[in-house]
Amino acid sequence: MSFYIGLLHYPVYNRKGEIIVSAITNLDLHDLARLGKTYGAKKFYVINPLTDQQDLAKSICLHWVSGHGAAYNKDRREAMSLISIASTLEESLKEIQEIEGEVPTIIATDAGKGGRQGVTYTLAREIVASNRAVMILFGTAWGIAKELIRKADYLLEPIFGVSYYNHLSVRTAAAITLDRLFSKIAEQ
Amino acid sequence: MSFYIGLLHYPVYNRKGEIIVSAITNLDLHDLARLGKTYGAKKFYVINPLTDQQDLAKSICLHWVSGHGAAYNKDRREAMSLISIASTLEESLKEIQEIEGEVPTIIATDAGKGGRQGVTYTLAREIVASNRAVMILFGTAWGIAKELIRKADYLLEPIFGVSYYNHLSVRTAAAITLDRLFSKIAEQ
Repeated sequence: MSFYIGLLHYPVYNRKGEIIVSAITNLDLHDLARLGKTYGAKKFYVINPLTDQQDLAKSICLHWVSGHGAAYNKDRREAMSLISIASTLEESLKEIQEIEGEVPTIIATDAGKGGRQGVTYTLAREIVASNRAVMILFGTAWGIAKELIRKADYLLEPIFGVSYYNHLSVRTAAAITLDRLFSKIAEQ
Repeated sequence: MSFYIGLLHYPVYNRKGEIIVSAITNLDLHDLARLGKTYGAKKFYVINPLTDQQDLAKSICLHWVSGHGAAYNKDRREAMSLISIASTLEESLKEIQEIEGEVPTIIATDAGKGGRQGVTYTLAREIVASNRAVMILFGTAWGIAKELIRKADYLLEPIFGVSYYNHLSVRTAAAITLDRLFSKIAEQ
């Protein structure tokens, strides 16, 4: 099993439904890197086309991977080492293809329907358990643009708890998704 | 089922293993309130004995529940309305007892062993599915003080993904815990 996670900052929606480039949130990088390390992701791609945003992400990573942060917190260093910065989704996919020798299967996530039918977690567990290279894609702001979701190989069904309400942060949604897909507890 | 969540800022450890009062993190409040709303928590107690920290939490809540934030984002308002601020764990428990007419069962969480054997998620699902009032307690900083963990009715087993590494943020750990305990998907 080879899986990668991607955090997309473009193309995503703002609250008005317009396509934007979202800004990088420091805690998203930390939380998703730590999740990636916990569940065995090979890399965590932070995808943002703006060079000043890429520079911000790089300086955060540098601090924790080889700067003062690395000595301060070894566990964090291990997690933050997973981060790669990419300008576009295509760039990250190309890199994965070079590593894996195959085009990765893209599983997109969305809190809504994303304009198509989502696959269940049960089916998605089978997909990720196969020998395919998989990229699991999370959106920031108000979610991944529908056009991109349509192009993905699969869309995961939205996360629901016990009610209609499912307005989770990307940090907590990613946590639930990775736990549902990769935790050994679900196999018990 | 009546369950509450508590986010403890004292007594918790710093990285040296000393007992401290931790500072409130804005995104913890948002992420856990949104999780609480998603999984059906009755209230979310932010527990901190320092009045300036309580004031900070209050002003964040006020903004989203009745200030500009409430008009800006209705979903967030709904989530942030779950937040109650308490000085101590005892204060929050007393309030739950007044609401529920019984002393709540405390389920503590810890990334380590917390000095005692944790219960499995399978058992914990049975506990929360009973008619008892339950308080699920999450620690900030380097985790809840062992003395308090020993006093809890139950300690949940630590979250592991696929390896030894389990250094998650409280936001993502709370997400996984609530999903494992309350999501309907686990019953399929």
